[in-house]
Amino acid sequence: MGIVLGPNQYGKAENRVVRIYRDTPRHDIRDVNVSTSLRGDFAAAHLHGDQATVLPTDSQKNTCYAFAKSKGLGAIEDYALTLATHFVDDVAPVSGARIEVEEYFWDRILVDGAEHDHAFVRRGQEVRTAVVTVDGKPGSQQAWVVSGLKDLIVLKSTGSEFHGFLRDEYTTLAETTDRVMATSLTARWRYLATDPAVGTDWDAAYAGVRAILLSRFASVHSLALQQTLWEMGKAVLEAYPAVAEVKLSAPNKHHFVVDLSPFGLENPNEVFHADDRPYGLIQASVLRDDAGDPGLAWYTVPAYA
Amino acid sequence: MGIVLGPNQYGKAENRVVRIYRDTPRHDIRDVNVSTSLRGDFAAAHLHGDQATVLPTDSQKNTCYAFAKSKGLGAIEDYALTLATHFVDDVAPVSGARIEVEEYFWDRILVDGAEHDHAFVRRGQEVRTAVVTVDGKPGSQQAWVVSGLKDLIVLKSTGSEFHGFLRDEYTTLAETTDRVMATSLTARWRYLATDPAVGTDWDAAYAGVRAILLSRFASVHSLALQQTLWEMGKAVLEAYPAVAEVKLSAPNKHHFVVDLSPFGLENPNEVFHADDRPYGLIQASVLRDDAGDPGLAWYTVPAYA
Amino acid sequence: MGIVLGPNQYGKAENRVVRIYRDTPRHDIRDVNVSTSLRGDFAAAHLHGDQATVLPTDSQKNTCYAFAKSKGLGAIEDYALTLATHFVDDVAPVSGARIEVEEYFWDRILVDGAEHDHAFVRRGQEVRTAVVTVDGKPGSQQAWVVSGLKDLIVLKSTGSEFHGFLRDEYTTLAETTDRVMATSLTARWRYLATDPAVGTDWDAAYAGVRAILLSRFASVHSLALQQTLWEMGKAVLEAYPAVAEVKLSAPNKHHFVVDLSPFGLENPNEVFHADDRPYGLIQASVLRDDAGDPGLAWYTVPAYA
Amino acid sequence: MGIVLGPNQYGKAENRVVRIYRDTPRHDIRDVNVSTSLRGDFAAAHLHGDQATVLPTDSQKNTCYAFAKSKGLGAIEDYALTLATHFVDDVAPVSGARIEVEEYFWDRILVDGAEHDHAFVRRGQEVRTAVVTVDGKPGSQQAWVVSGLKDLIVLKSTGSEFHGFLRDEYTTLAETTDRVMATSLTARWRYLATDPAVGTDWDAAYAGVRAILLSRFASVHSLALQQTLWEMGKAVLEAYPAVAEVKLSAPNKHHFVVDLSPFGLENPNEVFHADDRPYGLIQASVLRDDAGDPGLAWYTVPAYA
Repeated sequence: MGIVLGPNQYGKAENRVVRIYRDTPRHDIRDVNVSTSLRGDFAAAHLHGDQATVLPTDSQKNTCYAFAKSKGLGAIEDYALTLATHFVDDVAPVSGARIEVEEYFWDRILVDGAEHDHAFVRRGQEVRTAVVTVDGKPGSQQAWVVSGLKDLIVLKSTGSEFHGFLRDEYTTLAETTDRVMATSLTARWRYLATDPAVGTDWDAAYAGVRAILLSRFASVHSLALQQTLWEMGKAVLEAYPAVAEVKLSAPNKHHFVVDLSPFGLENPNEVFHADDRPYGLIQASVLRDDAGDPGLAWYTVPAYA
Repeated sequence: MGIVLGPNQYGKAENRVVRIYRDTPRHDIRDVNVSTSLRGDFAAAHLHGDQATVLPTDSQKNTCYAFAKSKGLGAIEDYALTLATHFVDDVAPVSGARIEVEEYFWDRILVDGAEHDHAFVRRGQEVRTAVVTVDGKPGSQQAWVVSGLKDLIVLKSTGSEFHGFLRDEYTTLAETTDRVMATSLTARWRYLATDPAVGTDWDAAYAGVRAILLSRFASVHSLALQQTLWEMGKAVLEAYPAVAEVKLSAPNKHHFVVDLSPFGLENPNEVFHADDRPYGLIQASVLRDDAGDPGLAWYTVPAYA
Repeated sequence: MGIVLGPNQYGKAENRVVRIYRDTPRHDIRDVNVSTSLRGDFAAAHLHGDQATVLPTDSQKNTCYAFAKSKGLGAIEDYALTLATHFVDDVAPVSGARIEVEEYFWDRILVDGAEHDHAFVRRGQEVRTAVVTVDGKPGSQQAWVVSGLKDLIVLKSTGSEFHGFLRDEYTTLAETTDRVMATSLTARWRYLATDPAVGTDWDAAYAGVRAILLSRFASVHSLALQQTLWEMGKAVLEAYPAVAEVKLSAPNKHHFVVDLSPFGLENPNEVFHADDRPYGLIQASVLRDDAGDPGLAWYTVPAYA
Repeated sequence: MGIVLGPNQYGKAENRVVRIYRDTPRHDIRDVNVSTSLRGDFAAAHLHGDQATVLPTDSQKNTCYAFAKSKGLGAIEDYALTLATHFVDDVAPVSGARIEVEEYFWDRILVDGAEHDHAFVRRGQEVRTAVVTVDGKPGSQQAWVVSGLKDLIVLKSTGSEFHGFLRDEYTTLAETTDRVMATSLTARWRYLATDPAVGTDWDAAYAGVRAILLSRFASVHSLALQQTLWEMGKAVLEAYPAVAEVKLSAPNKHHFVVDLSPFGLENPNEVFHADDRPYGLIQASVLRDDAGDPGLAWYTVPAYA
């Protein structure tokens, strides 16, 4: 019996890179939070404190900022692929890299109804995400792209039921045919392992998937949050052949009908208490039956979806 | 010399009331966080534990939910005025009430380009606020309304300078004629102490003030954040005669130009590090010189603005 | 009628200064978050963007770090007084300064039962605070010191009642003679306006006030949170003649007894749900009747207490 | 090609259960945040909205509270094992359950140096965690226990070096033989898959592992955070034969030496800026080479460690 070093990784987390494109008077902005993780031959650093194979996290940070200039910062999937490939290809001890990116959106400020050239207002809480993993040196290299969003807060004021459920001795919940359904959606979708660098318009795909998720949330008459998630994921797969799998995580943000009868008032689903905790948490994945092995795509991805 | 009870207040904080209007298939939603505070004759509770004059915070909570049905929940200023007046008028030991409300905005989800009737997506981080104070029993009653917003995150990628400043022995900052200026704006505006219940379209005023704040932020060529705040406040007062005073609090969310020269790269204001802390914090008020005594309008209002 | 600039201030917020004393092998640490605010003749900056009287917030930050070395960082009240006095005395346009400090505590790590010389573990959530205001140039200068703490989370599992309260038509709460009482205490105490730089052992006073607050919370059989706050504040004033006033803000963090009767179980105050929102919020001040004018001590101090 | 439902789970997250033991005047408290997740035959709920096999999350919540009374709430691993086994054994459609628990610690308040019987103060930010997974119906059932802690904030003011690292074209970092090392440690340790319900004193093991982690952090002269993590994990495995594997995640909370030379001051590692972002993030696992298959122990466990 011995004690050994297991899987490990290290990097610089949460580099807050903002890239302004100002080639014309009408500026553009990309605002991201990028985290790097390197995997490879780092046993000596752990066992003996020998840093000879360890590229400092500070250098990784510098690379994130430098690449925003030298390689550009467009779609976050492209940016992450460029960074990940660089670390694996150009840093000898590195055999794999995972780059996580969050993107925050800005709208142009309207002045007298016209979009301003260089003044922006943050769009909302919704965050676009990408997790890119590149594994193996050139020649035997694989890459996985998982795109996503989080903190997309949605609510239906009707069109949601919940009844006919299993009852046990701890069940006191009343059935309902009309309730408020609300969630803060996290979704991640994995692209098929064909060469992800070729031919994908990531920005257009993001907008498209997001629109489908919202549309299905709105349109599906829901008998359960599980059903809504399934319909969302299925619709994404139907519309995007390049997507292999969708993972969804949805807290059921309970809106409880307040009992106003002690005050002589009826409350036909008009006044609700929005509760914080506890909350239901529904997590599901929807995938193609020929999606193939996800490899390292989901390895250490935070949360279920 | 003696030890005495000083100013005090108590209430129920952060009641998360959601009101759905569903009289037609096209539902409307008001989503608020309301906090009550009562002032009055509560010395016995403090000194002797005697609750005879203390309306429980639980009853105050119930009132918030009940009024959302019986009185309605429209503009948060109206809702707050109704609640505050009720507590002062109808609860004998209460001589004053302050109601704080935060409102969260929702957009309708678009399905095939059309707004959905009952499915919504949270608009953004921006929060609308109101602080309403009613003091004195009927006959000698005064009311103050302070409307506001917070977490309105804005950024200009150019059109901002900072130079010519005072230097002391601790000054190392370089001057600049072109920088990124970003802030997360908190603004509060106090209405003149004419009867606030009469004739004000609070929702329209909110939209109007917000538009002015955004427009001035975008359009003013800024020599300092102080100047931008002054111009914002002044424009609001010019457009809204009913507004007596505007208070603004603006963290200077520093975006530092990254030095890419070690990597052989120029960086003409294209790549920035968005820093977290420390941050500049600029706070200013702009008011009419005949605005009169603000009374209790700002008493215990959190933060400078 | 005209529009004028009202009260304003600016500074650098949340400088995270850590000071290690390493003159002997047994190191000491002071870990603070310091915010500066300057008041004075800054109208030109607002009205015309003229920075000639504006000491950059960056210089204020530098001063915070430099003083931690040149003046030392001991009791946060001393550190804040030194900073505030410097800005007022040495920067011509500055007529007043407010310095806010938060301090985080560290314990020494125990190794085989012995305190380690230079390894520390964060003690808890409790934060020590100070708000120091210096106003007026030398000769007519005044200073105010408000010490405090926040996030001191305490709970009593019995010894708390709540009954005999006022009832109105919105009252449904049951009376109780035994409940859990829990709060996250914020307390601030103002020192008398005698020269605060003389003769006060701020660290000892902090420890003493904290011990009194905890002891009174524990020992007072409570008929209401109001009563507990009063007893806390009174005890501090009785023990510390240098303290003029105590302000307390205490969210009533509700622990609801869970009804287990549907499952055939009794629950004599054994199983509780710790709720998040809404919460009661009780705010009170206790002061000497000869405490005198607080001057600017509380001006723009965040929150009620 | 078809679209199919993939792995899924659902439950009630963040039930805030507080259990008071009051059999004697000296009360005891256990304060936890428990989340349930059930796995099993829930395809019909997703595909058709049929809830016949779905035990409501509300019932799961009720079970958490009821069990705190009927089964007791002692060591969180025992509580989680009891809950998980109940769901799998007693709810027909459930084939697996994962229970996550966080525990918050309280100290007794000292009054005149003596521990109070029923008044408590929260100990600190550190959170004890457990993730328990039970899979398979009785007869072919397996269970995994992962204990842990998070938010354990530690700092060394010396005894940490970082040099001899790999350099590339993006490397600008200076080498150092003396720096501040600080982290907010997350650690999880998996117990060997022998019957976890037998013979383990979980509370004692937690205290012991925590003491080892702290002691190694303090005592190891560190050449890199990687080395410190390895030494921490190895020491736990050496002391606890029942532990199969330790996973550690450690943000390198940078404390940068401030350059005070512009102000004529030396700074021999005395004044630091505690930075927020970005931060290094070092993640490592240490395990026995005969630890065997972890099975589902780590499945969907949030974060790397």
